[in-house]
Amino acid sequence: MALRGAQSYSDVMMTEPPSSSSPFESATLEFLFEQVWARPGLSRRQRRLVTLSCVCAADTTGPMDAHMYAALASGDLDPEELQEFILHFAVYCGWPKASVAQTSLLTQLHRLSEERGEEMAPWSDLPLASLGPADHEERLRKGEECFVEVNLTPAPPLTTPYFQAGILNFVFGHVWQRPNLSRIDRRYVTIPCVGLSDAAMPIQSHVVSALRSGDISISEMNEIVLQFSAYYGFAKGEVLNRVATDAWAEITAERTPGTA
Amino acid sequence: MALRGAQSYSDVMMTEPPSSSSPFESATLEFLFEQVWARPGLSRRQRRLVTLSCVCAADTTGPMDAHMYAALASGDLDPEELQEFILHFAVYCGWPKASVAQTSLLTQLHRLSEERGEEMAPWSDLPLASLGPADHEERLRKGEECFVEVNLTPAPPLTTPYFQAGILNFVFGHVWQRPNLSRIDRRYVTIPCVGLSDAAMPIQSHVVSALRSGDISISEMNEIVLQFSAYYGFAKGEVLNRVATDAWAEITAERTPGTA
Amino acid sequence: MALRGAQSYSDVMMTEPPSSSSPFESATLEFLFEQVWARPGLSRRQRRLVTLSCVCAADTTGPMDAHMYAALASGDLDPEELQEFILHFAVYCGWPKASVAQTSLLTQLHRLSEERGEEMAPWSDLPLASLGPADHEERLRKGEECFVEVNLTPAPPLTTPYFQAGILNFVFGHVWQRPNLSRIDRRYVTIPCVGLSDAAMPIQSHVVSALRSGDISISEMNEIVLQFSAYYGFAKGEVLNRVATDAWAEITAERTPGTA
Repeated sequence: MALRGAQSYSDVMMTEPPSSSSPFESATLEFLFEQVWARPGLSRRQRRLVTLSCVCAADTTGPMDAHMYAALASGDLDPEELQEFILHFAVYCGWPKASVAQTSLLTQLHRLSEERGEEMAPWSDLPLASLGPADHEERLRKGEECFVEVNLTPAPPLTTPYFQAGILNFVFGHVWQRPNLSRIDRRYVTIPCVGLSDAAMPIQSHVVSALRSGDISISEMNEIVLQFSAYYGFAKGEVLNRVATDAWAEITAERTPGTA
Repeated sequence: MALRGAQSYSDVMMTEPPSSSSPFESATLEFLFEQVWARPGLSRRQRRLVTLSCVCAADTTGPMDAHMYAALASGDLDPEELQEFILHFAVYCGWPKASVAQTSLLTQLHRLSEERGEEMAPWSDLPLASLGPADHEERLRKGEECFVEVNLTPAPPLTTPYFQAGILNFVFGHVWQRPNLSRIDRRYVTIPCVGLSDAAMPIQSHVVSALRSGDISISEMNEIVLQFSAYYGFAKGEVLNRVATDAWAEITAERTPGTA
Repeated sequence: MALRGAQSYSDVMMTEPPSSSSPFESATLEFLFEQVWARPGLSRRQRRLVTLSCVCAADTTGPMDAHMYAALASGDLDPEELQEFILHFAVYCGWPKASVAQTSLLTQLHRLSEERGEEMAPWSDLPLASLGPADHEERLRKGEECFVEVNLTPAPPLTTPYFQAGILNFVFGHVWQRPNLSRIDRRYVTIPCVGLSDAAMPIQSHVVSALRSGDISISEMNEIVLQFSAYYGFAKGEVLNRVATDAWAEITAERTPGTA
């Protein structure tokens, strides 16, 4: 019975479910909406952050538009949070993909305004203050602090452009400290992004630090892995699942007195 | 109950199923193996060609090794067919990813030989004959013929290196004509590869020509889409599903006399 | 005959060619090295920038290490240029993938020092000056100028975090203006990165502006497309090829008096 799946589809997507005439559409309702989205363990807003990361990375404008619309229409994420999502996503999946997400958000905001018969608020320039400290030394120092807070490991040396101008000056010296998405929210974007990027070390470091910091519990992490697998495939999901399982075993062992 | 899923897992993967302790592992057995692999409509060998394309593209050595092993151990694909798969995959997803698949195949052949207590047959140099005609003109002419046969559209002009040195000289002038995988087999590799590559025009052209040629029926195509979605995610699966559905509607309309 | 392919392999990779025992390895020598790398039309250094972008994006540490080593060992790109490549690549393909490239570069520098019996020069902190202007207003203004110079279109408004903090403050306000890679060099990295990212608008804008500015000629662009197709697959290559061909037709028409 796909009735529960159809209900879950409407709740999540804010539109009518498809007729389930192909194996793909049946599986969409029965698996994706009935067995994944309808699960407890994560809020719908959290599942949206994971899903938006996956659909924006997958270069599929149909699903991207549909999920941007649903996030806005449900009120689960407001325009400022979604704008911030796009900047964070740009860092982890690159600017070209993010530019498509940016366009998608603007078209879906427009669509929703039209549906609601509201005038869309005009955008104005963001304040310069929102760009963070101007002083390079202060910025790098705060970048190092933020790096340690997020990664729970020492900051890298300032010896390469990647680490200096990139990671400490911009990624941790600015992006992770911005308002509108919390550090925990940003983990719900970062984990799927590193999962789909296939880079072993970043997967390891972001999964481990999310669990070790207590920002994300192991049961929440398991839900992230399942949500990710549905949208970005079981092949990549398996890697994320293994890293999460191993990391949790190690963290648990450390915390249990009298174990090795 | 994931009993049927566990049985399907053993049949497909040729190893014991995982204990289903996390949401990901439960979904692996219940969805991936019980509701996808166990479906009728495609042979297990055909599902393997789709799946191998996805896991080799996903850069996940664990799943890649497991599926290479399973393909060999089940006898569904022999070493020569898998070698040929790797070359075809290289063309559509690029050389770097294929070189990892090449290593995976060799390690899994070795693993299987050890398990069976057999000596692994030494590889010998392939005959030069297998590289196809040396004469450039003949090669390009045959490439044009093969292009038309596969794509059901006229061959492109020889005006760019991409079309001349790449598409007509190498891809259709040689690879698609090689033995060990049939033209139909190669479609089971090409369709997932273009699906995950997100390139709208290649998705369109390969889905349409597979259906229009009769090499792949619409019900087989629908199964390919589901198998692909499981391994490469519903986000990209949705695009493939839509293209297949639209293409089939158009082909059906053309074939029905008296319809527009 | 793969003799020329084997010679080209040694010249490019700075190591011995593989024995060509599998279809994949034979095609590597015959197609990739004899028919692609050995072509005129781009310098080997330019082909390396395209190839490094592809192998770093493909998440394949073997090929990535091999190409980093070859770039260094040949002297085609020095460590500072490769460090700069990694930062530029991070912007277009995301930081997780770039962090793997960063590690690869350091290990290959170490390998080369050992082979040459030289002590590897210790890295020291980069100067703060290399982070560009501290003043936010100046930075955004220069970012707008650089955006126009690279894209040949007006800069976007400062209304979203993606455009303000990201594109104008960091990507064009800093990265594109850094030393060690010229603007033209950066195009040889950006074009493959947008090509593999599948985002239609960025592909369009970077291909068009590279041609229109005269930074890259149409014959160079055609070679980029072939090199890219070999390393990231013909599926994505086809898109890049079409955009380049269409863009060039349009530019030529504009420049020809008396045509529409």
